[in-house]
Amino acid sequence: MSLRDEALEMHKKHQGKLEVTPKVKVTNKEELSLAYSPGVAEPCKEIYEDPRKVYDYTAKGNTVAVVTDGTAVLGLGNIGAEASIPVMEGKSVLFKSFAGINGVPIALDTTDTEEIIKTVKYLQPNYGGINLEDISAPRCFEIENRLKKETKIPVFHDDQHGTAIVTMAGLINALRVTDKSLSDIKVVLNGAGAAGIAIVKLLYSYGVRNMIMCDSKGAIYEGRSYGMNPTKDFVAEWTNKDKQEGKLSDVIQGADVFIGVSVANALSKDMVKSMNEDSIIFAMANPNPEILPDDAKEAGAKVVGTGRSDYPNQINNVLAFPGIFRGALDVEATHINEKMKQAAVSAIADLIQPDELSPDYCIPAPFDRRVAPSVARNVARAAMESGVSRVEVDPDEIYNKTMRLTDI
Amino acid sequence: MSLRDEALEMHKKHQGKLEVTPKVKVTNKEELSLAYSPGVAEPCKEIYEDPRKVYDYTAKGNTVAVVTDGTAVLGLGNIGAEASIPVMEGKSVLFKSFAGINGVPIALDTTDTEEIIKTVKYLQPNYGGINLEDISAPRCFEIENRLKKETKIPVFHDDQHGTAIVTMAGLINALRVTDKSLSDIKVVLNGAGAAGIAIVKLLYSYGVRNMIMCDSKGAIYEGRSYGMNPTKDFVAEWTNKDKQEGKLSDVIQGADVFIGVSVANALSKDMVKSMNEDSIIFAMANPNPEILPDDAKEAGAKVVGTGRSDYPNQINNVLAFPGIFRGALDVEATHINEKMKQAAVSAIADLIQPDELSPDYCIPAPFDRRVAPSVARNVARAAMESGVSRVEVDPDEIYNKTMRLTDI
Repeated sequence: MSLRDEALEMHKKHQGKLEVTPKVKVTNKEELSLAYSPGVAEPCKEIYEDPRKVYDYTAKGNTVAVVTDGTAVLGLGNIGAEASIPVMEGKSVLFKSFAGINGVPIALDTTDTEEIIKTVKYLQPNYGGINLEDISAPRCFEIENRLKKETKIPVFHDDQHGTAIVTMAGLINALRVTDKSLSDIKVVLNGAGAAGIAIVKLLYSYGVRNMIMCDSKGAIYEGRSYGMNPTKDFVAEWTNKDKQEGKLSDVIQGADVFIGVSVANALSKDMVKSMNEDSIIFAMANPNPEILPDDAKEAGAKVVGTGRSDYPNQINNVLAFPGIFRGALDVEATHINEKMKQAAVSAIADLIQPDELSPDYCIPAPFDRRVAPSVARNVARAAMESGVSRVEVDPDEIYNKTMRLTDI
Repeated sequence: MSLRDEALEMHKKHQGKLEVTPKVKVTNKEELSLAYSPGVAEPCKEIYEDPRKVYDYTAKGNTVAVVTDGTAVLGLGNIGAEASIPVMEGKSVLFKSFAGINGVPIALDTTDTEEIIKTVKYLQPNYGGINLEDISAPRCFEIENRLKKETKIPVFHDDQHGTAIVTMAGLINALRVTDKSLSDIKVVLNGAGAAGIAIVKLLYSYGVRNMIMCDSKGAIYEGRSYGMNPTKDFVAEWTNKDKQEGKLSDVIQGADVFIGVSVANALSKDMVKSMNEDSIIFAMANPNPEILPDDAKEAGAKVVGTGRSDYPNQINNVLAFPGIFRGALDVEATHINEKMKQAAVSAIADLIQPDELSPDYCIPAPFDRRVAPSVARNVARAAMESGVSRVEVDPDEIYNKTMRLTDI
């Protein structure tokens, strides 16, 4: 059977991929009087008197909203709220399977920035965190920034930060393998979408200064007169200090690293040949990368990563978001800040021991059971150290708990 | 241990009463490629091309939003969104346990009528139905009416219609026991809240014409100069044709039926003594009824029902809402209309055979496993017959399916 038929059959057989299940039985009047009236009034009164107790008596503290407006779904684009639900259900499956978190799909029937912000704020009581998903740029930036300011729970746009965190972890290990350093490398990024911008920001926070980002029109630079927008103005300010102009094939010459979040076949073998020796290629276009790994290697690349499971070094967000939210939820974090993102990067990168590192093993496999527990532990510790946690928990306990909860 | 301690312990032990669980395993890359990228794109594309397929490929068709703003929670009143979540989780537990439906708690952090309406409309893609819960009057009327008009899925304010349906079923059987008829009886209702109004409407649709409703100030009548509002104006128009004035103790004289949705001890033994012979008392104030059943019987009542599980004839919404939504969802109904409500009434009332009927057995027990399947079957049939269904299903199949799904 084709993947298409198999996927359709699986989704239809189960009528979706999620269900909401009780943790308590209600099979007689005693159980009913505890789970519902009159007993249920007791936790209500406790929470009314001390709102923090909502974390004790309800599922809030283990529940994340997976919020989309259906405008940037996979490679499919703006397919609308209902058509995006299979992805949101899939994401929720991953939250539970990898880190024991309840994910609730919320596909909103509006694409208005202010309405999305307001709606998520109204929904806030039910959730310990908000995972924004598949919302198109530039609205996704405004929505995330505003919600971070205007809610009291972690808000995380996975398409941006999840991708950036896993890329950064892979890059750190790739540099170890090639014996290059963050402060010296020249990085060329292709694709000025949400993920690309987030990668630029994270690389910058790690000390990378020599970066050039290209969009479909070529290098982005300060003062470029065409195809600019506020997001690209930001990119121009933070990258390409020499204001290099030209196409990708021009600016990639002498680069150490290529990071693609663009489209299939955007990178040719000739472009790879023009890069510095021992080059690093992260070609993350889905489902078909900017260049096939075999071609990149033939052209001289030393480390190649893609989004695909059938090649080495799969750059997959599932390495990051389950553990990040697990750690944030378990210390009742109010935010996911830069320290926590960096803690996630280290957790992922450092799982591979120096003697295990190789060009084909710079990123842990998606089904490495140690990943989510390690990320959760590191993220929780960083949250406590940076003062955004509301409770103190032993990070090793979080590691052990996550290991018990993970079902992969 | 006290009920209070037991309830708190149970809620804390589980950190709430619900979890979101995957129906599919994701333990290797083949499973990941079906449940998530790239396979998940296939159902997305199918739904994009034919929006109706969202019922085939996602959980929408088996998922109901349990929506509140926390303004009228149990007898606790306006305790806010977060403090109401234990009730919404409890309701969701009942949806699943009694009828296999996914209930998703949505406690909204706004009490603005228009904002609630808009938010629920934005959430509509995810849900096959909307159960409104514990929203205070009169806003609950406007919210329900508008959502019924402005959405394409069933919207049902359970505090109104669930209570009315179960009361009506009990009344039909109580009249059989006392050999009285709907068109002849005098009914006095106490409590002009959402449930009371819904009961008046439903009684009227069954041909009851001699009704008087009291609020805390006494009988409501057309032209009363004090304590009126648009809802009570409506009540005055539909009841009390003779414009009787006076307190409950005045107007209850000669009544056949008392229906209380008010407060503890509102009905005295003397008032019951002043009623017609073989009187019927439904004293549904929670947790303490308007009059205790033993006192009512001593004063001459023949049939007494309450909201409590420790007396006969428990009038409990759980007899209605799980089966109503099961039936509505299974035929993809666009509304829950009057025919469907009446079908639910009959299903509940007729479960008790004529030779089983007695003053202490006018209403099936909450844990009678036949109830939800019978209600679902009747409601689905009524939906199809009244033209609000989108698919045709054999009602007996729905009965059997619900019987399999019920977990009580």
